Amino acid sequence: MEKKCIGVDVGGTTAKIGLLSVKGQLLDKWEVPTGKAENGKHILPDIARSILDYLKGSGMSAEDLAGVGIGVPGPVMPDGGVEVCVNLGWENVNPAQELNRLLGGGVYVKAINDANVAALGEMWQGGGRGHKSLMLFTLGTGVGGGMVLDEKIVSGFRGMGGELGHIVVNFDEPLQCNCHNHGCLEQYASATGIVREARRALEASGQPSVLREQPDFSCKDVLDAAKGGDQLALKTVHHCMRYLGLAMHYVSHMTDPEIFVIGGGVSKAGQFLLDIIRQYYEGFTVMGSRRAAIGLATLGNDAGMYGAARLILDREAED
Amino acid sequence: MEKKCIGVDVGGTTAKIGLLSVKGQLLDKWEVPTGKAENGKHILPDIARSILDYLKGSGMSAEDLAGVGIGVPGPVMPDGGVEVCVNLGWENVNPAQELNRLLGGGVYVKAINDANVAALGEMWQGGGRGHKSLMLFTLGTGVGGGMVLDEKIVSGFRGMGGELGHIVVNFDEPLQCNCHNHGCLEQYASATGIVREARRALEASGQPSVLREQPDFSCKDVLDAAKGGDQLALKTVHHCMRYLGLAMHYVSHMTDPEIFVIGGGVSKAGQFLLDIIRQYYEGFTVMGSRRAAIGLATLGNDAGMYGAARLILDREAED
Repeated sequence: MEKKCIGVDVGGTTAKIGLLSVKGQLLDKWEVPTGKAENGKHILPDIARSILDYLKGSGMSAEDLAGVGIGVPGPVMPDGGVEVCVNLGWENVNPAQELNRLLGGGVYVKAINDANVAALGEMWQGGGRGHKSLMLFTLGTGVGGGMVLDEKIVSGFRGMGGELGHIVVNFDEPLQCNCHNHGCLEQYASATGIVREARRALEASGQPSVLREQPDFSCKDVLDAAKGGDQLALKTVHHCMRYLGLAMHYVSHMTDPEIFVIGGGVSKAGQFLLDIIRQYYEGFTVMGSRRAAIGLATLGNDAGMYGAARLILDREAED
Repeated sequence: MEKKCIGVDVGGTTAKIGLLSVKGQLLDKWEVPTGKAENGKHILPDIARSILDYLKGSGMSAEDLAGVGIGVPGPVMPDGGVEVCVNLGWENVNPAQELNRLLGGGVYVKAINDANVAALGEMWQGGGRGHKSLMLFTLGTGVGGGMVLDEKIVSGFRGMGGELGHIVVNFDEPLQCNCHNHGCLEQYASATGIVREARRALEASGQPSVLREQPDFSCKDVLDAAKGGDQLALKTVHHCMRYLGLAMHYVSHMTDPEIFVIGGGVSKAGQFLLDIIRQYYEGFTVMGSRRAAIGLATLGNDAGMYGAARLILDREAED
């Protein structure tokens, strides 16, 4: 029987687990609850038990696996170690070593940061399919970033590879970012950032806007209003996406990927959003013939699972 | 006899040619004039003739070479093609294919952008020795950049990899950069930029400065004055290096190299300059434990020759 891969995307409330063929077909998926309780010490044992139970129930064993890939919501060092993972309560955990042990010692396990793993997933089976180098921006509560060059994830020497959400793009920002810096990309290009910037615009002027009638408006409300022609909402979206275009300009001058893929909740605004992003990215990047394509992510919350499974195949190719 | 490598760093007035051992020892070096005349069509034949003459004179033949690497002063596409090279007058040239033919067809030749090649050279035998990932900034007339990740040059999909000199860092710059954009890093962190910023500072105030007594002052004069405690010169150097520190912050959040290496004429200011750069880089990069080392380039104008020769060894390793 052809071996299978397992991709695990570990999040703060659940871990998504997928069984995939080595060709990238998702054969089955399920979830396991996670939690920070007791410094997240139950997370890996729960995942291991779930995988072993699943294999048993399907008449498979650990030997039928090419390996297990894990996406971790925090920085992972080149040796696979996680110094601190706030989202899971982990401190000094090596999740790959630990999961390998919990699975009986015979299964190859590899762990990488979840945003980077999602980028690999989108390259393999998502919005970046057919390309070998890609930068994924995930615009959600925060801004995640993942970079793939020559089909390999760029994790960086200290696990900071692709962490574009925390580059400083505005020196005049009085509010502090979650990372304690001021003026990070995440403060504008995230769903949270778009809502805050819309509130600021409403407070700064008496300009009429449909948003004034919705005191608890969401990022989707801002994007819908912008699509509907609301000038204040449209200006807000332009203001926020200008910073994303700037970050993409930096990326093009640094690693020059074939394509940018935009994912996360904000990206549900679709082509309307891409057109605005493109306008700023191309405006900053004057070397006209040397701009990258821009596309939408297509795997949604499954991207990490796909990418985690894909991690295993690099090892297969090396063997 | 152990094979040798040849590294060629093609510049606008001369090509530097070096014979190196595969261990990175420079055994001999010489120069050949270059020029834009007739769209630079004599450049590669002159280099080929010089190499063949040298081999003959040393009792060697093309078969004694592991290969020839070339650094080209402009963007090189992944297939080795050069669409336009303003510095050499080239249009649609494939220098590796061409030089291979001129050397008789039996020698492996590889061409990469010169700034990227210099970065590889500094990693191999220079200021980045012992590291596997590095970003080189060459602060000269312009600002060149080269990035090496996992001992491989990042050329990019369109040859823009490491072109940090042309990222926009100041939106208020009225003057145009050579690339036609406004506010590029090169407009501040180059020798030319430092002189212009010093002139601006002199014009903007009546602040006393030793530079007022030197109407044709150079970048070295500004740096010397700053070292000597001249407040206007010191402020200028800080102003310019702040932008370099910002660019380094971006790089750390993108590819997270082990070390930054600073080269070019401006870097002759040594540790004094590095201390200022570090101050801004670390100020922007709040994730304290995840900052890169910063060092000086040590190979000077030979870096490209070393790096070009090193290109050959990757191929040797793949064989």
